[in-house]
Amino acid sequence: MTSMISTSVIEAENESRKEALKRDYEGLGERLSRRGIDIESIKRKVAAYGVAVPSWGVGTGGTRFARFPGPGEPRNIYDKLEDCGVIHQLTRATPSVSLHIPWDTVSDLSALKEKGTALGLSFDAMNSNTFSDAPGQAHSYKFGSLTHTDAATRRQAVEHNLECIEIGKALGSKALTVWIGDGSNFPGQSNFTRAFERYLDSMKQVYAALPDDWRVFTEHKMYEPAFYSTVVQDWGTNYLIAQELGPKAFCLVDLGHHAPNVNIEMIVARLIQFRKLGGFHFNDSKYGDDDLDTGSIDPYRLFLVFNELVDAETRGAKGFDPAHMLDQSHNVTDPIESLMTSATEVCRAYVQALIVDREALDGYQQENDALMASETLKLAFRTDVEPILAMARLEAGGAIAPVATYRASGYRTKVAVERPAVAGGGGGIV
Amino acid sequence: MTSMISTSVIEAENESRKEALKRDYEGLGERLSRRGIDIESIKRKVAAYGVAVPSWGVGTGGTRFARFPGPGEPRNIYDKLEDCGVIHQLTRATPSVSLHIPWDTVSDLSALKEKGTALGLSFDAMNSNTFSDAPGQAHSYKFGSLTHTDAATRRQAVEHNLECIEIGKALGSKALTVWIGDGSNFPGQSNFTRAFERYLDSMKQVYAALPDDWRVFTEHKMYEPAFYSTVVQDWGTNYLIAQELGPKAFCLVDLGHHAPNVNIEMIVARLIQFRKLGGFHFNDSKYGDDDLDTGSIDPYRLFLVFNELVDAETRGAKGFDPAHMLDQSHNVTDPIESLMTSATEVCRAYVQALIVDREALDGYQQENDALMASETLKLAFRTDVEPILAMARLEAGGAIAPVATYRASGYRTKVAVERPAVAGGGGGIV
Amino acid sequence: MTSMISTSVIEAENESRKEALKRDYEGLGERLSRRGIDIESIKRKVAAYGVAVPSWGVGTGGTRFARFPGPGEPRNIYDKLEDCGVIHQLTRATPSVSLHIPWDTVSDLSALKEKGTALGLSFDAMNSNTFSDAPGQAHSYKFGSLTHTDAATRRQAVEHNLECIEIGKALGSKALTVWIGDGSNFPGQSNFTRAFERYLDSMKQVYAALPDDWRVFTEHKMYEPAFYSTVVQDWGTNYLIAQELGPKAFCLVDLGHHAPNVNIEMIVARLIQFRKLGGFHFNDSKYGDDDLDTGSIDPYRLFLVFNELVDAETRGAKGFDPAHMLDQSHNVTDPIESLMTSATEVCRAYVQALIVDREALDGYQQENDALMASETLKLAFRTDVEPILAMARLEAGGAIAPVATYRASGYRTKVAVERPAVAGGGGGIV
Amino acid sequence: MTSMISTSVIEAENESRKEALKRDYEGLGERLSRRGIDIESIKRKVAAYGVAVPSWGVGTGGTRFARFPGPGEPRNIYDKLEDCGVIHQLTRATPSVSLHIPWDTVSDLSALKEKGTALGLSFDAMNSNTFSDAPGQAHSYKFGSLTHTDAATRRQAVEHNLECIEIGKALGSKALTVWIGDGSNFPGQSNFTRAFERYLDSMKQVYAALPDDWRVFTEHKMYEPAFYSTVVQDWGTNYLIAQELGPKAFCLVDLGHHAPNVNIEMIVARLIQFRKLGGFHFNDSKYGDDDLDTGSIDPYRLFLVFNELVDAETRGAKGFDPAHMLDQSHNVTDPIESLMTSATEVCRAYVQALIVDREALDGYQQENDALMASETLKLAFRTDVEPILAMARLEAGGAIAPVATYRASGYRTKVAVERPAVAGGGGGIV
Repeated sequence: MTSMISTSVIEAENESRKEALKRDYEGLGERLSRRGIDIESIKRKVAAYGVAVPSWGVGTGGTRFARFPGPGEPRNIYDKLEDCGVIHQLTRATPSVSLHIPWDTVSDLSALKEKGTALGLSFDAMNSNTFSDAPGQAHSYKFGSLTHTDAATRRQAVEHNLECIEIGKALGSKALTVWIGDGSNFPGQSNFTRAFERYLDSMKQVYAALPDDWRVFTEHKMYEPAFYSTVVQDWGTNYLIAQELGPKAFCLVDLGHHAPNVNIEMIVARLIQFRKLGGFHFNDSKYGDDDLDTGSIDPYRLFLVFNELVDAETRGAKGFDPAHMLDQSHNVTDPIESLMTSATEVCRAYVQALIVDREALDGYQQENDALMASETLKLAFRTDVEPILAMARLEAGGAIAPVATYRASGYRTKVAVERPAVAGGGGGIV
Repeated sequence: MTSMISTSVIEAENESRKEALKRDYEGLGERLSRRGIDIESIKRKVAAYGVAVPSWGVGTGGTRFARFPGPGEPRNIYDKLEDCGVIHQLTRATPSVSLHIPWDTVSDLSALKEKGTALGLSFDAMNSNTFSDAPGQAHSYKFGSLTHTDAATRRQAVEHNLECIEIGKALGSKALTVWIGDGSNFPGQSNFTRAFERYLDSMKQVYAALPDDWRVFTEHKMYEPAFYSTVVQDWGTNYLIAQELGPKAFCLVDLGHHAPNVNIEMIVARLIQFRKLGGFHFNDSKYGDDDLDTGSIDPYRLFLVFNELVDAETRGAKGFDPAHMLDQSHNVTDPIESLMTSATEVCRAYVQALIVDREALDGYQQENDALMASETLKLAFRTDVEPILAMARLEAGGAIAPVATYRASGYRTKVAVERPAVAGGGGGIV
Repeated sequence: MTSMISTSVIEAENESRKEALKRDYEGLGERLSRRGIDIESIKRKVAAYGVAVPSWGVGTGGTRFARFPGPGEPRNIYDKLEDCGVIHQLTRATPSVSLHIPWDTVSDLSALKEKGTALGLSFDAMNSNTFSDAPGQAHSYKFGSLTHTDAATRRQAVEHNLECIEIGKALGSKALTVWIGDGSNFPGQSNFTRAFERYLDSMKQVYAALPDDWRVFTEHKMYEPAFYSTVVQDWGTNYLIAQELGPKAFCLVDLGHHAPNVNIEMIVARLIQFRKLGGFHFNDSKYGDDDLDTGSIDPYRLFLVFNELVDAETRGAKGFDPAHMLDQSHNVTDPIESLMTSATEVCRAYVQALIVDREALDGYQQENDALMASETLKLAFRTDVEPILAMARLEAGGAIAPVATYRASGYRTKVAVERPAVAGGGGGIV
Repeated sequence: MTSMISTSVIEAENESRKEALKRDYEGLGERLSRRGIDIESIKRKVAAYGVAVPSWGVGTGGTRFARFPGPGEPRNIYDKLEDCGVIHQLTRATPSVSLHIPWDTVSDLSALKEKGTALGLSFDAMNSNTFSDAPGQAHSYKFGSLTHTDAATRRQAVEHNLECIEIGKALGSKALTVWIGDGSNFPGQSNFTRAFERYLDSMKQVYAALPDDWRVFTEHKMYEPAFYSTVVQDWGTNYLIAQELGPKAFCLVDLGHHAPNVNIEMIVARLIQFRKLGGFHFNDSKYGDDDLDTGSIDPYRLFLVFNELVDAETRGAKGFDPAHMLDQSHNVTDPIESLMTSATEVCRAYVQALIVDREALDGYQQENDALMASETLKLAFRTDVEPILAMARLEAGGAIAPVATYRASGYRTKVAVERPAVAGGGGGIV
């Protein structure tokens, strides 16, 4: 296994924190045992948990106004994999990477796979891109891709998805994620019904090419880049898609793709109930698809989503097997730090949901004791479970304090030397 | 036929406006004929159109803070029917009334039906009420009705709906509209999945009691009266309901029940495409379920909804037969005036949608000529079609100027004498 | 001092929890001391903190659709004070009550004051009511109060506020809170500018009657009960008011009165900076002015508000002295339980903000280390400070577990016998 | 005067439409005269009206996901001016252009000014850019510009604004518009108060450099590119800025920069009342700062804004002299067509507001006749005033049908030959 960060750095950093962690873990264990919870079994569950990292997430993101790159930006998928390797090495929580085609296209797929294996990384869902034009592309996606009025453009978009499946097969991926930006900017520009008919027709061709053990995840989004209508605008439409396509088709929920004020955890519950929850793109948002770091704006909402997941897990909901992935835009932080922190936030929400007293909660719900039901969730949420997360990382060879350890390692400085500085610039508006 | 307003008043009012109307109608006819549109055929279509009036709409509405009644508030369903008779007499656009049980409960249903017939009114969809407790009710709906955790409460709510069907059968209604306020105010208070299972179970019992020629309309709403989660929160859940229940179950769209910024016309298109659009509750809103007068805040949005309806009508969409009803809360106006004006706005949007050049629009959509597609809609929207609406009313015996004619009739003053003044008061908060 | 709950009940309940609390408090003390924080000084600060309770909050609230009262609803301000006495006795965090006139009008003010004193309660800001009509009122507020186009109606509203001041003087209050529902439901109904001129003119008359040591708090709200425009719609308008009125005029921030997605903590910061923050109405919301229990929906947002308050306190911001009050509608819980829990949440957010490492935060802000700045806040937020809150209550004679103790006391059952059951009913819509 | 479009093309196109226009104008004149309105005086007012065009608006816009350029993209400010010349030639409504520095930087300012004069264009407000990094810039704006924690960066941003003033002086501009993207993506990243203190300090330096006859317009925006907080986030903060800076400082209102559901026309009224309305960036939006074509989504809202402007004009509001500018992103249309159409929509809203019967409206407002007040506005809004707009264009030498005439001219094809094709590409995210 290739270690991106020297294990001696990790050990030195851990050493200085080990004693306090041990005491905190014991104290927490005692408090949890008073509630009838075995801290060890919780730790084992989170140790077995993983969330995928998006390959594009390790580069600095931007807005339509500007992008401000940082030092040591990854130049290609190999650089990106190394950055992902750092994240997993320190957090032990991100064992897989999700690729984006054509951004991550390489000529030698087996070399790529080997690189991943060497870093301890597998390949999660493949992501196609028909929301921007690649150089030399025959047909432009300016007015749509899978839903374009022109059949040749739709065909090109379908074939791109088929290519993504082929690449994924070579890498060991088992899923294709399809997000399109197709929509319209003016009332009247697009016929909603015909556009959706074309979408279903295109996606049926993609679906037909899925290997038996693959799943396809379609992702809805309220708006952006289209600003009046979007073809796959909400979970209702997304559900119709999954239903029309068949048993291998599922809905992907990105936490930032909803209308203001929407109760996202309820959407999650509905999709689980109707066996069409495919998975998540985790991030946080205050206004729109802000792609902020997971849990940085509304950590209780993240917990409530995980509360639904653990509830489904606990009662053995049929067909329940969602994929977990981070999907964020890191505009003002070191992407590696943001992804480590966000992976930790996901684990935290999971552990908090695990320690909810579900028997008590059931009782309160049955008796309509709204206050105690709420308090039952909040008791779990306000429990500081960091010692469990840190102990799980420590025992798996990771860092008690991932960000501090990463900074101590000097990784960013090192790659900044190897990787040439990138010019920033205006975004899409100029 | 009982005329609530003396025809001589109507004739006198019309007389003073007839000449100008004739000139305006001719001028508009000429302009439309230049676009290849026959004004007469448009007029015939809108003359054949009707929108139902809600019985509760003729009383002054209020908020949780207060209700400020006006003079001559209707005391019972008979008074309400007379007010509805006025609206239809002057607008010729509201031939049916939608009842609300138990608010409109009477002992003698055949007398009620006769009263309607005498006023030229038929009975539209029946509305059940399980969002408030009626005096003497065995089980409270404080914590839910069709989804309550207690089986007896659910049974009571089911039976109330069955009773509504029975009343409707006696009155000639052909549909039941079910809106419930069930939901929760705290995370944890309700288990989303179990609540929805209970909902489906209850509604299947209601559905089973539907006569063969009836339809059931379920209505979604994002929030209020429940402020954290609502069981039937959006069109996605509403679609699942209609699908689970069967071919007589359809989704009702209230224009004010959506999340901020949602593209409502697109939801309409999706429901049409999947043959589950049951109908509308028309009103307008700026913030939430404001229940403002239809078309008073965003008339272009109303037009865009009708654009979808006419598009479906034009291409002969299968299973397309939506019910149209106003549903508003008149807090600061004379409810009769608001309902007349709103019925006119609905007709206006319908006519504007009828004069869209659909062939040209199709072409622009096919060529992705977004600007001309938008202009095609806006050309229709900005056409002042009032002469068509007024001429249709005049020819059907209604008023060219309904509000002015109503005011000239002195109807409100007259009923204020007969109907005792009602005390206002605080709303639900005290 | 009149004790509403027997101290023996409190002691018995505390006894069973004392040992665990002691251990948890010590453990937390150790963890905080590692961060350089003295737990005792934090505890002293929160022990000295208090949040006012609204008299109307102890009755069950409702919506425009219905109100579902619970057992033992308070019949008058004396009953309400006793309920408030329970809240303060168990939480030791709510030493004052805010009255609402005319709801709390009594003939003998000195008897009322004595009752408060006996219960250990003082009187916080007075609240006037010109958003509903009181029986026998000469002029209706249907179309406005302080901004009504009719001078006599405005005068009546002004005089009501003057009366509130007089009552407050007799009770020892030092502030008047003015919230009005004035606005419009239709574009055109109201001239924005003239309505605001009338508002300022009316409020100047109220301001002129303020005693020297009083403050007036004006409260903004985006919408409801008016659904197109509201005269005091946002903090911008509220600031203009405070500026126009003078140095005793300040802005009140209700956490639920803002547009979707608005950054409330930033508004708080601006008002502090320009010395016009008067205080808060604490509650929580997901959609609009939901008036849910404080901290029940988005506890991190509450923390971020307190982060601004502690920041201002720490740097000695000039003119900084905000009033703290709960303002919630308890529709599905026992109001006493909700208010105890909410007072605790306010204290929790305060303590979490107190333990933010402000020196480190300053450094990260200066260096634009966004990730570590965020982590600094989150470290404080995820610290479970319940042992501090519980210890402060215990030491002040309150309950370690207020809700459990309250339930054990049988208070609600007892008052349900004395206070007759109240009928529920529809809200403002019928 | 340089004519970008051959006058013979314009004349030929007008010829085919002149007869119908004459009839329509006469018919409308008759209808308006029945309402006591003289169509000629309305036409004169709109003929004298102009709205500025942004230089960056004639290039195809994009999103953070992609930009899809069209044929004949302008290569520099000279090309842009020619495109603006086309817009003004055909619409006669856009006599000035607003520049953006450094995008429009040239070495020879007098040549640029001459070019404008030759095209009949003057120079409107100057726009500075400190939201993206220009090549070679000493200090990056990644973490802010006028509010950066680093003094040298702030100084650089101030100096850029001073340079914009200098350029503007040479071109005859009389105003500077300052919009910054400064803010934060994480709670804690920025200290709200200190950042705003730095903002005021920087802007005071800019203000000090304003010539006596200049104004500075500051522009607020709720979010984007910063996604947690923005320094100048709303009109409240914007008002504080204008007040702190002095009498030459005013607030700019961009129609797309507000929170969901906000009543923008009311903000306009408040700023007029307090003499701080600087002007507008017109566009339309459904979700956020969508920068869609003016009037394409909610034309009634645009009318309501103009209703406030005409109201202020009519009553002679003191200090009322707002600047009018379009600010849109044309992602899927020919920018020239969008800008011509949008300029027409602005003129349309102005004319509709001019024909509101203000005397009647005043009366209805005074009597609280909400329904007739609303109808008074809607009567004006639904009047099809296109004949007035077209006649004004025709008489000023413009086109009756600007888009059709533009297409007939072949301008885009011609410049596509001269201007090399531009590659599209991903936006800020890659």
